[in-house]
Parts: sequence; C-alpha cells; structure tokens
Amino acid sequence: MRISKLLMPTLREDPADAEIISHKLMIRAGLIQKAAVGIYNYLPFGYRVIRKVENIIREEMNRAGAQELLMPMVVPAELWQSSGRWDKYGKELLRLKDRKESDYCLGPTHEEVITYIAKSFIHSYKQLPINLYQIQGKFRDEIRPRFGLMRGREFIMKDAYSFHASQESLDSEYQNMHDTYCRIFERCGLKYKVVDADSGNIGGSVSQEFMVLAENGEDALLSCTKCSYSANVEAAKAQTTVGEQTPTEEPVKETATPGKRTIEEVSSFLQIAPDQLIKTLVYYYKANAKEDHVIVLLRGDHQINEVKLKNYLDADVVLLAEDTVVRKITGVEPGFCGPVGLKNVRIIADNGVQGIADGVTGANKKDTHLINVVPGRDFPLFETADLRLAAAGDKCPHCGAPLEAIRGIEVGHIFKLGTKYSQAMQAEYLDQSGASKPFIMGCYGIGVGRTAAAAIEQNFDASGIVWPKALAPYHCVVIPANIKEPAQLEAAEKIYQELLTAGVEVLLDDREERIGVKLKDMELIGITSRIVVGKALAEGKVEFRLRSAAGNELLPVAAAVRRVIQEFKE
Amino acid sequence: MRISKLLMPTLREDPADAEIISHKLMIRAGLIQKAAVGIYNYLPFGYRVIRKVENIIREEMNRAGAQELLMPMVVPAELWQSSGRWDKYGKELLRLKDRKESDYCLGPTHEEVITYIAKSFIHSYKQLPINLYQIQGKFRDEIRPRFGLMRGREFIMKDAYSFHASQESLDSEYQNMHDTYCRIFERCGLKYKVVDADSGNIGGSVSQEFMVLAENGEDALLSCTKCSYSANVEAAKAQTTVGEQTPTEEPVKETATPGKRTIEEVSSFLQIAPDQLIKTLVYYYKANAKEDHVIVLLRGDHQINEVKLKNYLDADVVLLAEDTVVRKITGVEPGFCGPVGLKNVRIIADNGVQGIADGVTGANKKDTHLINVVPGRDFPLFETADLRLAAAGDKCPHCGAPLEAIRGIEVGHIFKLGTKYSQAMQAEYLDQSGASKPFIMGCYGIGVGRTAAAAIEQNFDASGIVWPKALAPYHCVVIPANIKEPAQLEAAEKIYQELLTAGVEVLLDDREERIGVKLKDMELIGITSRIVVGKALAEGKVEFRLRSAAGNELLPVAAAVRRVIQEFKE
Repeated sequence: MRISKLLMPTLREDPADAEIISHKLMIRAGLIQKAAVGIYNYLPFGYRVIRKVENIIREEMNRAGAQELLMPMVVPAELWQSSGRWDKYGKELLRLKDRKESDYCLGPTHEEVITYIAKSFIHSYKQLPINLYQIQGKFRDEIRPRFGLMRGREFIMKDAYSFHASQESLDSEYQNMHDTYCRIFERCGLKYKVVDADSGNIGGSVSQEFMVLAENGEDALLSCTKCSYSANVEAAKAQTTVGEQTPTEEPVKETATPGKRTIEEVSSFLQIAPDQLIKTLVYYYKANAKEDHVIVLLRGDHQINEVKLKNYLDADVVLLAEDTVVRKITGVEPGFCGPVGLKNVRIIADNGVQGIADGVTGANKKDTHLINVVPGRDFPLFETADLRLAAAGDKCPHCGAPLEAIRGIEVGHIFKLGTKYSQAMQAEYLDQSGASKPFIMGCYGIGVGRTAAAAIEQNFDASGIVWPKALAPYHCVVIPANIKEPAQLEAAEKIYQELLTAGVEVLLDDREERIGVKLKDMELIGITSRIVVGKALAEGKVEFRLRSAAGNELLPVAAAVRRVIQEFKE
Repeated sequence: MRISKLLMPTLREDPADAEIISHKLMIRAGLIQKAAVGIYNYLPFGYRVIRKVENIIREEMNRAGAQELLMPMVVPAELWQSSGRWDKYGKELLRLKDRKESDYCLGPTHEEVITYIAKSFIHSYKQLPINLYQIQGKFRDEIRPRFGLMRGREFIMKDAYSFHASQESLDSEYQNMHDTYCRIFERCGLKYKVVDADSGNIGGSVSQEFMVLAENGEDALLSCTKCSYSANVEAAKAQTTVGEQTPTEEPVKETATPGKRTIEEVSSFLQIAPDQLIKTLVYYYKANAKEDHVIVLLRGDHQINEVKLKNYLDADVVLLAEDTVVRKITGVEPGFCGPVGLKNVRIIADNGVQGIADGVTGANKKDTHLINVVPGRDFPLFETADLRLAAAGDKCPHCGAPLEAIRGIEVGHIFKLGTKYSQAMQAEYLDQSGASKPFIMGCYGIGVGRTAAAAIEQNFDASGIVWPKALAPYHCVVIPANIKEPAQLEAAEKIYQELLTAGVEVLLDDREERIGVKLKDMELIGITSRIVVGKALAEGKVEFRLRSAAGNELLPVAAAVRRVIQEFKE
C-alpha cells in the first residue's frame, strides 16, 4: 500500500490520559482512538494487528479440533437467570431493555448461551466431547476502565467451551487447550508464563492464567525460584511455617494500649514483633442469598486474601464490616478486638495463627490488648484455613524454595468448569447406560486486544513499538529518501513492486515529507523492516534495517529485496 | 472434518415460526439457532458460510482500495446528538445507560462514528479521497423482526464510508463501489439487479440498492421491460399521463352520496371510473422539529407513496391525520373531504391530478360530493409533485416502455451522502486554497447474513439448499455406504485424506447412521459434491454427484477424486 492513501495518524506527543506504554504507543502510532471511556475505534493499522492475532488463534483452535461459531452480543435475560448469574453478577453486566421492555444484557462472557446451545443439540454421549469457540466483541461495564485495550469495556475475546461425558475427557481437553494456548502465544512472539489462578466469577475448580511478563503488568504473580510453580498472588497457596516454639505457660493478661490500634502501633508500643500479634477482622458476607458475619484471624505480619476468603465461604460478596457492626459483635471499636471470650460468632483462623506461641491480641475493651495469648488454649481453633496473601520469600508449595514476585498481564485463562452451568441450566446428555447426566464443561478465553497491547509492553524502545514479526501491521516499508529525486522514487517503486509480487506485506512511503519524519513514523509504528533508497543508489545500493536491529546495512538492491523476502518467508 | 465430531444439528421438520424458505432451511440444516426474537446463534456450518461471504467482501473491498477498521457496537450518545439523529431516529435505535447513567446506543449504522474519525485525523485535501470499511455486528431494534437472518435485530454488516474533496471524486468512488459490489455478488453466485432507491434514514441524494431477485423478496421492484431502468417501488418515479381531454365546462355541483366514503363506493354509486375521482388525504408531518398538517390530492386509482411525501416535505415523520384533525381542517369526516373552497391549509397535488378533466371529490359536507370539478379552475394547483406509488404497467421514466413488477431482497445499498453528516458534525478539511470545507461523503453497506439467506432463496430444491460453490460450508462429503464394511470405510478414509491433502474442504461422514439419513443430511445442508463408497467399490468404482446435478456418475476412485479437485481448484 502507498502510505499517501492510508489513514495513518501518528502523534508526536504522548496522550494526556495514557498511563502505560502500550496505551501511549497505540494512540501515538495511530492504532486505536478512544470513542468513549473504555471503548475504542481500531484504526486500520491497529486492526491489522488485531486480525493477525485473531488469525493465529483461529488457526491453532481449528488445528486443536475446536469448531468456530458466533453467539450474539445482546443476550436475553432468561439465559442469565437460568444460570443464576443475572442476580449474582455485579454492575459489570450491562443490563438493558428493548423497545418491548424485555430484559437483555450485553454478553461479558458466554457460558449461558453456549450451554443453551449444547442443551438444545447434544443429546447423547456419542456427540461428546466437543469444543466450540468464537472470536467476538464483548462488553463489561468496568468501574474503572483504563490502560487502553488492556482494560477496556468493549473488547474482542476468543472464548471456547468444551463439553464432556467424563472428568478424564475434560482433563485431556484442558491439556489440549493448555498446549494450544502455548502455541498461540509462542507464535505471537511473546514471553509468557502459565500460572495457577482463581476462577473468579466464572466458577469451577481448576484454572490457569497465561501471563505475558511485563514490569507494568496489572497482575502480581509469585513464581518459584527453583521449580516451575507460578501462581497469581490471588490464588497462590501460602505455606505456613509451623511454630517450633513452645507455647508460653504464662496466663493471659490485659495490658493498656491507649490509642494503639494498628499492628504497627501496637507492636512498637509493646516492643514485640508484628508476627506475635493476632489480627482480628470482622467480615460481612453473602452466600446463596444468606447474609452473615464472620471473624477472621491472621498473624500480624500477614495480609488477608479476600479471594481465598470468598472461595472458602463460597460467598458471592465479602466486605470488611462497618464499625457499628464490629462494635455490636465484639463490644469494641476496630483496633481492640480479639478472639478471646468471643461467643456466638463464627471464627476462622488463617493457618499462620496456629504457630503463634505467645500472642498479643485485642481485649474487646477500649485501649486494651491481651498478652500471653496461646491459640487453642485461650480461644478455640475450630476452623483454620489458608486465607492469607502469599508473598515473596514464602516457601513454594511444591518444592519449598523461596517464591519471588513478578508482574504479568493476563492474556489467557483456562478453566475446568465442571457442572456448574450444566446443572443450573439442566443441560444434560444420555450416557451409555441411558441415564441423564449434566455435561462436564471447560472454558478457555483469550483477550485479543490485550494480547496485542501486551506484545507492546514487552517489545518497545525509545522510538516506539518493536512488533514481533507475526503481529506487525506490515513487514516492510520502502522509503525514497528524497521524493524529488526521480531516480530514487523510481527505484523505490520498483523495489516496492517486487516485494508486493513476492507476497511481502509492504508499504511505499510516497508522502511528500522529510525523510526524518518518515523514519520516525515507521519506527513509532514498528514496521518490521525498512529499505531506504538514498544517495547510495548511485552505487546501486540501498540501506536495509530490521526494526529490532541496531544499525543499517548497505546492500545492493537485489540483495536487500532478497533479504526482506527471506525474513518473511521462513 | 469427521462429521461424528462436528456440531451439525439437522431437523427433519420445518420450524413452526419460519415463514420463508431460507429461514426454514437455515434452521433445519442447523446453520442458525434462535437465541431471542431477531437474535441468532450462528452454528458452525452456518458460520462457515458467513465467513465465506465476509472473505469475498473483504478481498474485493481491499482490491478496491478501501481500508478495514473496526468501530464499537456501543456508541456514545454525544456522537448521535452531534448529527441530530439521536432525536430523529426512532425506536430502532436501542438506547441504553451504563453504570454511570451515561447515554449510549447500540450502533445500527456508523456514519457518526466514522465522521468523528475523519474529523479527528483528516485535515487536508491531500489525505483525500479515502474509503474506510468494517465488517461488524450491528443492532436495530426492529418492531417486527422476522424471516430469520433476513430481518434480524442483531446482524452482521459490512459498512464502508468514503470521504472526498469534490463531487467528482465522490462520483468516481461511488462507481468504484458499484462495480465492487457487482463483483462481490457475482462471486457469491447470485442473480441480482441494481435498482434506484430511496435514501431513507441515512440521507443523501442518490442511492442504489443491490437486489437479489427472489419470489419471496420483501421489496417490491419495478423494472423496465425494455431498458435497464429498475427501481424500488418506494423510489420509482411515476410518469404522469397528461390529460388530453378537454376540461368540462359544466359548473361544480353538489350531489348526494349518502354513506359513500371510499373510492370504490363513490365510483360505483355515481357510475364513474375511479380515475375521475380526486382522493383527499390529510397528513400530519414533522420537519425540523416543527409539526404541521398538509392536504395531499391523488387520482382515485393511484396510491400514495409516503416515502416520496416524506422526502418532498423533508420531514422526519409523516402520518395520516386522526379523524378529529381531519374534521377540524375540512369541517367533515374523512370520505367527504375535498380541495374546493379549502382555505388556510397547504395543498399538494400529485402530478396525476392535473390530467383530470371532469372530476369528482368530497364537498366537505357530510354525505355529499362535488361533480364537474376541474383542477386549477375550481381549486388552485399551487403545488404539484410526484407523490404516488408507481405501479406495474406505468411507463418507464427513461424509455416509456411499460414497467413490470418483480420482487427482490436488498443485500447491498450504496449512497451519495453529500455533506449531511460532515456539516452537522463540523467535520472539515482544508482545501488547496486553505479554506475549510465539509467532507463530501459516500456510504456503502452489505448485509452479510442477508446475503447468505438470499443465496438460499435463489438456490434450493425439495431436498434442501443448493449452495453456490463459493458459499457452501464444505465442498465435498465422502460417505461410506455401510460403515460396517471395513473395505468401504477404508476406501472412504483414503479418499478423504487425498482430498484433504489437495486442499479441498471435505467432510467424512463417519457416523453410525443409515446411508439414507446421511444423504438426506448432506442434501439438506447443501454440500456441493459427494462421493459415496458403496458396493461398486468391488469394481473399483464410487458414485460421484454434484448437489446441483440430477443423477450419480459411477467413476473409478481416482477419477472421482480428480473430478472433485477439478471442481474446486478452477
């Protein structure tokens, strides 16, 4: 294509509202344009990248035996009601009414629709297993859309759903999708890690995320320094150091701690280590339409992992309780609560609390704490669970080596859903003995725009984007250094035509602009290679350069053309 | 693909709610499934067809020099407000609010968004002309969605928009798109006609529709029996037979017509031809936020064309007035109104009224008509216009030969928009003299799902769909007649593998079903060719048949394979 005829609106300045590099560069390179908060126009160069990602995904999904279909964006409420998610899903589910006042939502994910399809058409174990996928625009009404395509509201996603008659069949398709995703992200040229994940709103027992590693990644990960274990911090199992100290034999005693509420204040006032403190948190939660409160105990130096708490309680919502509620349950304001003597409330201790040999906790009395507290002796340890955030330095749950903190961008997520949706929606098949069974399901997503954005987070320099070869909007640009030199223009045109004929995705920069402007634009957009036709043409030579390389190579025209063809035909 | 592993849910019975053949067959062949009123799931076989249509469109649009991009489905209200269509567009525009109560709509078409893009990035005549297109899901909240993909609410559309610095440039791109559309529908294997059309909600001066000819087509067309003129009946120009009779010299006279209101009643009661009657209609209209009423006169045997009236008045809405309003304006109930003596109301006469030499019309007095009425003598003819529906038998406006009525399905529509959107949205560029000018625009749409459905309306038989080669979900199916015969199964497998290797889109029907069931399914779905491996295998032969052919050919295995490859490699 001739650049003079293309919509290629590059900017010299960073946009004001862009915080991360991929967002800045996608705007500056004219790949996307904001249409509304979290809603983007994909401009021609950007859409070429999107379609390259889509095509890689499509090829690999087809190769893996999955079948493509397309579900609607506007989904009737009944389907979401039949799964129970119409009420459970928060405001991210954009609900709307049509002209007849019927309820619909914009699909943020399509478990309900695909389960309805399976229920309609799959009646026998003979039709199983099957894996159906789509590449489609979705909508999630994020409370804080940000980072461009990284967390938009309308976004393109590949979502696949598999149906099985046995757990083994699901396990094998889950592995198939795992391997397919690895091929997809490898073909995209990305450095990534597969990490254990929480299943969140989608549900199910086992899930893993595909994380593109990037310093600015939204997700905190923990990765073993020795073995292959990696997990999203939300899901990382925390290993408890079992206390080896003998519990104190001193009896519990009150001590005055006037105005000392936080772990820092109490530990510094009493001159004890934070890991001797027992933190007492009161949580509100809602599970299966029932509301209640629970007390969570943690070691002073540990942080609560609300995702774990939510999963442990099988709750839809968990929230720190209001002060008035805390007072009602413990008799005192937050900061002075503790488990000793508390009655009529469920208490769950994080595993880390068990190891405390000589603890300190609130006395349920203003300005007072208790010392010499021994869990199990001074208050019962009926329920213990892993409820804390794992952290760098914790032991790997597989091999015991220390974990390190890294950051990543979630580009894919695979789930073993089990029968959550098929049971709720009575989607069943007849097994070999003629009995009705709910489908066992898996689901598998990839964020298409996010994959493109993540590729930038991993591949850029001071001049702009350095696309992996497979994702670059074009492979090569031919630039006449001085458009007023007919010889240069003519040679550039000839090279352009040769590359076109050879099937290279090539641009001719035929704009009436200075060479500096042209080079800057092409570096910003990240076109993979360039041929500059300049003064050296007098000796039959042109400058060749890969976007990722440090300098130019002066090559005879034919050699430069061959070089480009070679780069993109391998 | 092996059919045993595919989702291919065929039905033996017609679905209850399907009225037209394409809808029936798409459901029965398992191509689509209703998800809600006017909203469909595209099942794997159906989506393959959709993607084939999309790919033909994409290739031809790219060849024509257009650039692909993608705009969002959820569009902020401000854009629609800036064009003025937020208020003008009826309930087909589904309006919604996000979690922050901001207004959005689901885009039924994207003139506003693309004009915003052009306004943002195109600043100079040097960047013009440009043509940008997308293939995207759209939503129109139709009051009566019906006929499957033919008139759905969520549907896939290719929409293109061009921007120009001169009318000549628009004219030339309009012609380019006209030719591109012809190539697209030819490649799809469709019989179609390009007809003059009304621009409707979109606006602009000139527009043409691409109509796939089909008996059940929703659109009534008029086509010249001699020259190439064709038009949608909404837009067809009506030729007036200029009256050759000398006007009567008798004076106007009242005559009693007790209870005779309709054209039929009055003409039969007075024993006159309907074309002697002058029909008087009172219309309410709204134009540029102003409401008013107007009287329209028509010859008794002619029908009003409300689209023409709306365009003539430049109105957003025209509606027949309520009886109370008619009484207020004419002093009498509908059926006895007439133009003679009416004051303080705008009267527009259809061109056909001028030729009446001795007319009859209502007397604005109950149970009374006037006879001996001469237009221009007994009431003024200030305004005359073409306001009637043209009809079969009318003269062609180009050559005078009679028009005939045919029916079609609108699959494409091209418009010369002019500056309607660019002026409203102040989308301007600098011309060569440095002056700001609004873009001159064109827009060009194709209904993707509709094209697939129209292909069925044109290509089916009693057994099912007979896809044009370019749109069939698969090219060939290989069927072992008896799956329990290892030799047949083995030979079928070998043929299947050979065709796969040759790049043919081939199915192997490896289901444990009777041959009759398999043949029926394949005929219903319309797979283009089949090879049945049956008893003749003993002599090294198999049955080959094209879906469109009348009978089988018995061919040696290798010849059958060659034949299939030949069919799809040309």
